[in-house]
Amino acid sequence: MKTTIERQVDGGAEAAQRTGFQDRAVVRHRGAGQGAARDCVAEEMPLALVVNGIAHVVMMVTPRDLEAFAVGFALTEGLVDSRKQIYDAEVRMHARAAEVELTIAQEAFLRMKGRRRALAGRTGCGVCGIESLALLDLAPERIAPAPLPPDLGAAIARASRELPDHQALMRSTGGVHAAAWCGFDGAIAAVFEDVGRHNALDKLVGHLATHGVGPDTGFVFMSSRASYELARKAARVGIPMLATISAPSSLAIDIADQAGLKLVSFCRRDGFVEYT
Amino acid sequence: MKTTIERQVDGGAEAAQRTGFQDRAVVRHRGAGQGAARDCVAEEMPLALVVNGIAHVVMMVTPRDLEAFAVGFALTEGLVDSRKQIYDAEVRMHARAAEVELTIAQEAFLRMKGRRRALAGRTGCGVCGIESLALLDLAPERIAPAPLPPDLGAAIARASRELPDHQALMRSTGGVHAAAWCGFDGAIAAVFEDVGRHNALDKLVGHLATHGVGPDTGFVFMSSRASYELARKAARVGIPMLATISAPSSLAIDIADQAGLKLVSFCRRDGFVEYT
Repeated sequence: MKTTIERQVDGGAEAAQRTGFQDRAVVRHRGAGQGAARDCVAEEMPLALVVNGIAHVVMMVTPRDLEAFAVGFALTEGLVDSRKQIYDAEVRMHARAAEVELTIAQEAFLRMKGRRRALAGRTGCGVCGIESLALLDLAPERIAPAPLPPDLGAAIARASRELPDHQALMRSTGGVHAAAWCGFDGAIAAVFEDVGRHNALDKLVGHLATHGVGPDTGFVFMSSRASYELARKAARVGIPMLATISAPSSLAIDIADQAGLKLVSFCRRDGFVEYT
Repeated sequence: MKTTIERQVDGGAEAAQRTGFQDRAVVRHRGAGQGAARDCVAEEMPLALVVNGIAHVVMMVTPRDLEAFAVGFALTEGLVDSRKQIYDAEVRMHARAAEVELTIAQEAFLRMKGRRRALAGRTGCGVCGIESLALLDLAPERIAPAPLPPDLGAAIARASRELPDHQALMRSTGGVHAAAWCGFDGAIAAVFEDVGRHNALDKLVGHLATHGVGPDTGFVFMSSRASYELARKAARVGIPMLATISAPSSLAIDIADQAGLKLVSFCRRDGFVEYT
């Protein structure tokens, strides 16, 4: 499989060096005092995902690891069934936007176009709200049985302890979420950061798939809350366990329940809460 | 103007009483110990927004204050130019989803349909990614000059001190954001909560518009990070200042700069950072 990362830069050297943050002039106030200062802010930028020449969606992302993002998004949103159906991912950076052109297998592309046609047909012409709700696809398939950490508490404690050291972008900006892949002992194997928690997860999923890491070899640990889309995306690619530092939503719990996804939240060094 | 809230309940008494949270059975782990417990989780539910009989969009929301949400969304997304163009907002609660039917002025509806047609025409047929990016409308109009708090530090300190007392849903669930309207002295006049920060802001904007509170009478204070959509939405309705507890993104700063929106973040009792 060929994978190209071509950087066709409109914005000069600056855009080519994008690392996910920008330096900005600010005024810091502390008590009665104030002073001019520099601040490092998390970069947020529109990304157009183009699939086999057709614009599919525009997302707001932090512009790093965009090839992994596009691959992960295609998998977690069910545009393709496997990494093998993705033939090429071409990233183009512009001054104020990014573009990724995915080339996917014809079979997957035809299915995607069929779904889009169904959607367009139903929205343009006076569909009722409940019909459009039915298109949401909130009912996940069951995840294949997979091993979980034998000592859940120890694994979560270790991941909680180690994650901050891997959150480079968070340390400098204070404004991004992290998605980590952990072994059964909680050791962190890979971390991706983004202004969007679902984007961080997509980057991680894309990385795992590209490097042939099976979802049955560990669990996902996230610095964020657990919203429905994290549970839905994890279920779609067969990840058996999602652990988050902050709270879950009701819909995340429901989807995890239906999928057989183990959901644990409020993960700390000294405790956690099991929701499924 | 007539405004109806009709609750047509599929899910029985439980759904009718929705207050934005649900009680769930969990297992709490603390050190080596564990025990069955109950936990209050933030509710997240799909909402279909139907405008003059046409399904417009499906959003994930916390199902409370949905009439305010729909009114605010219509204003901050530019579906209507003013509250007067919204004739009716009808909320229907189902067991697992919500629906709001907005009736808006014919003039606004025709403009909205025109935009949708342009969008559908351009996406279905092989548009390039950059063309779809151009449809994003990230260039805000300038906000009309409006007064700001005379003592910014004192106003932010007061809002920071008072906000937690108003975050009832956050206290019980740990999983929602708050959008508050503050007077120039930082006194909190209204607070709305939601799993989505942009939804919390839309609920607040809908409430202000319905109660005839002008955007030039205070500022918005949010418990979250400042993402592009918060700045974009605030600019659209002429709110002159957005203060957030957590970090801003680069695009939020850019949009605030272009709109003339005052953006202050990392707001604490003893300090804050000015980004514009």
